[in-house]
Amino acid sequence: MNDITDKMKYFGGVEGGATHSNLVICDENFRVIGRSKGPGTNHWIMGIDECADRILKMLDAAKDDAAIPRDMPLYSLGLTLSGCEQDSSNAELAKVVKQRNENSARSINVASDTAGSLFTGAPGGGMVLIAGTGSNALLRTPDGQQYGCGGWGYLLGDEGGAYWIALRAIKAVFDETDGLRLAPHPTQRVWEAVKEYFLIETRADVLPMMYKNFEKSFIAGLTARLAILAESGDPLSQHLFADAGAALMSHVAALVNKSQNGVTPFGNGLRIICVGSVWKSWGMLMPGALQMLEKRQVKTNLELVRLRVSSAMGAAWLAARHVGYDMPRDDTAFCEVFYTYKYKPSHNGVENIQNGYISCGCSEFWS
Amino acid sequence: MNDITDKMKYFGGVEGGATHSNLVICDENFRVIGRSKGPGTNHWIMGIDECADRILKMLDAAKDDAAIPRDMPLYSLGLTLSGCEQDSSNAELAKVVKQRNENSARSINVASDTAGSLFTGAPGGGMVLIAGTGSNALLRTPDGQQYGCGGWGYLLGDEGGAYWIALRAIKAVFDETDGLRLAPHPTQRVWEAVKEYFLIETRADVLPMMYKNFEKSFIAGLTARLAILAESGDPLSQHLFADAGAALMSHVAALVNKSQNGVTPFGNGLRIICVGSVWKSWGMLMPGALQMLEKRQVKTNLELVRLRVSSAMGAAWLAARHVGYDMPRDDTAFCEVFYTYKYKPSHNGVENIQNGYISCGCSEFWS
Repeated sequence: MNDITDKMKYFGGVEGGATHSNLVICDENFRVIGRSKGPGTNHWIMGIDECADRILKMLDAAKDDAAIPRDMPLYSLGLTLSGCEQDSSNAELAKVVKQRNENSARSINVASDTAGSLFTGAPGGGMVLIAGTGSNALLRTPDGQQYGCGGWGYLLGDEGGAYWIALRAIKAVFDETDGLRLAPHPTQRVWEAVKEYFLIETRADVLPMMYKNFEKSFIAGLTARLAILAESGDPLSQHLFADAGAALMSHVAALVNKSQNGVTPFGNGLRIICVGSVWKSWGMLMPGALQMLEKRQVKTNLELVRLRVSSAMGAAWLAARHVGYDMPRDDTAFCEVFYTYKYKPSHNGVENIQNGYISCGCSEFWS
Repeated sequence: MNDITDKMKYFGGVEGGATHSNLVICDENFRVIGRSKGPGTNHWIMGIDECADRILKMLDAAKDDAAIPRDMPLYSLGLTLSGCEQDSSNAELAKVVKQRNENSARSINVASDTAGSLFTGAPGGGMVLIAGTGSNALLRTPDGQQYGCGGWGYLLGDEGGAYWIALRAIKAVFDETDGLRLAPHPTQRVWEAVKEYFLIETRADVLPMMYKNFEKSFIAGLTARLAILAESGDPLSQHLFADAGAALMSHVAALVNKSQNGVTPFGNGLRIICVGSVWKSWGMLMPGALQMLEKRQVKTNLELVRLRVSSAMGAAWLAARHVGYDMPRDDTAFCEVFYTYKYKPSHNGVENIQNGYISCGCSEFWS
């Protein structure tokens, strides 16, 4: 039925994080026919030229995997990358990729990593909430309005991400020892975990890790240890994860409020695509998360899902749509629900949900 | 009375910050006979070798100024530098300075910048509280016990410093706009100041300043604008300075509590040597500062002073004492009192001080 030209239409997508990236090539039935992996592709970290080179290297590898000639341009290539929040630098990146290899793809579409996840798990509208090394949130209404919250990096945001959790753990130990702020729970087990993870003995030994040899993702790696501690019952670690859950749900509250203007566009509730390894600790995030939903009066049902496939799929789908191709898709295969939040108005108008056990951690004036 | 050898004894001292440094050479009557200035000498920023070279260059210039031969070693040289908190790296720095120029000084003594200020303004014991680009605190009891609080740099501390104030101002605008956290007061004038200072138009324009072209001292420079705004009545700027005052007094509370163990070693009150340009805004810091002193139940009189001379004087005095020289000094010429805090126990045992106007800024769960 298809002529030879149609058979040769391929669609690429890249999922780009701060530390690693994935590329897929799909045929026009949205079946993956080639894949590759690569290092981080956040152009704020390595610059646009190096970012473009990394993408092109991955693209060649995936074309090899798909047995497509390297000099055959894809019909479209979607790049949904961490750090691609600005139209001007997105256009620049697309231009540089094309300049460096004009046979890469006929059309290149650049968007944020949140957009990639969104169009993988909720093409009809929903939210993506990233809690990996950093954090970020994007909501897209069914009619295509987009609202963002966060995504400003580790100095200005990243609340609820792994780096943020790790830094607060280290800071809790430092401040308790200094007497600057009292920690809400004993810090001993967290401090043992910090010492073990960084292979250090004193607080001063942390300084080279934080400054001279700073690597955000290395600091963030402490959070996997803290997750184990929290699971084993350490109250301070549990507190830190509950705080992260609260911080993440503040993003939800912000975007629900922004998008609603009094009327929710999500009749059956809002799908939230939860991306990043912090979500593995949902049980520990939950107390703070539920408390924040109550505090910020989020009055809508929520469906928390995780993706089963790389968000490079959404990048490919989105870029194809930009050149007029609406690829067929089986959404149920793409994600699974792991928590459903039912908003139940109580008699006095307040939600009837279980309270978390965490009190406000405001132990100081300036918090 | 002195023989020729005595007449040739000279004592050097360096005050080293993150962005600039001062060196003095004194005779044995503690009179300054030579001076020089140089760039920052925090070895965590430029490495120990470059730090040593900068000190030696300043030393040669000051010897020239004092008309001392460059190859004539000082009797002692005190280095009290930002970042010199660790004995091991302090010993390394002293060794490298001596290796690179064995005629620099017979004895080299390295200590933190806080120690330099302390021995300039309160050689008999007291506290130094730095609020420059960063922040740091050190208390020394009359019997020579030392207690530190803070000084962990911009990622782990620096509460109350200019960078910290600037970042919280930027963050207040970002979070209010995102809906992530509501600011306690309208953000408009602060946002105008941010745009003017960084010469930008949108929030995204802040990102290159914070990441790719990050310079802590440049970010911190925003705080001088915020001080003007606060003076002109902007409530958010006033709130940020009050928070900084609270954060700074938390350092005081921590160290008073640590040093007391129930009994104060400072009968007539504690002298606090206030170093750094944030103290120029004491009127704006005060409401939060006084409230924190009450909240943390600091039950001692405090005497806030600023230095009239470079803390390189204290560095020189301290290093001289390390080699057995107790240089004469006129402390009243070295500092001036700008605020006296009288602790007045009220009938119910709580201090009777004026309350600040700032309520707890805990607007979110995770604060």
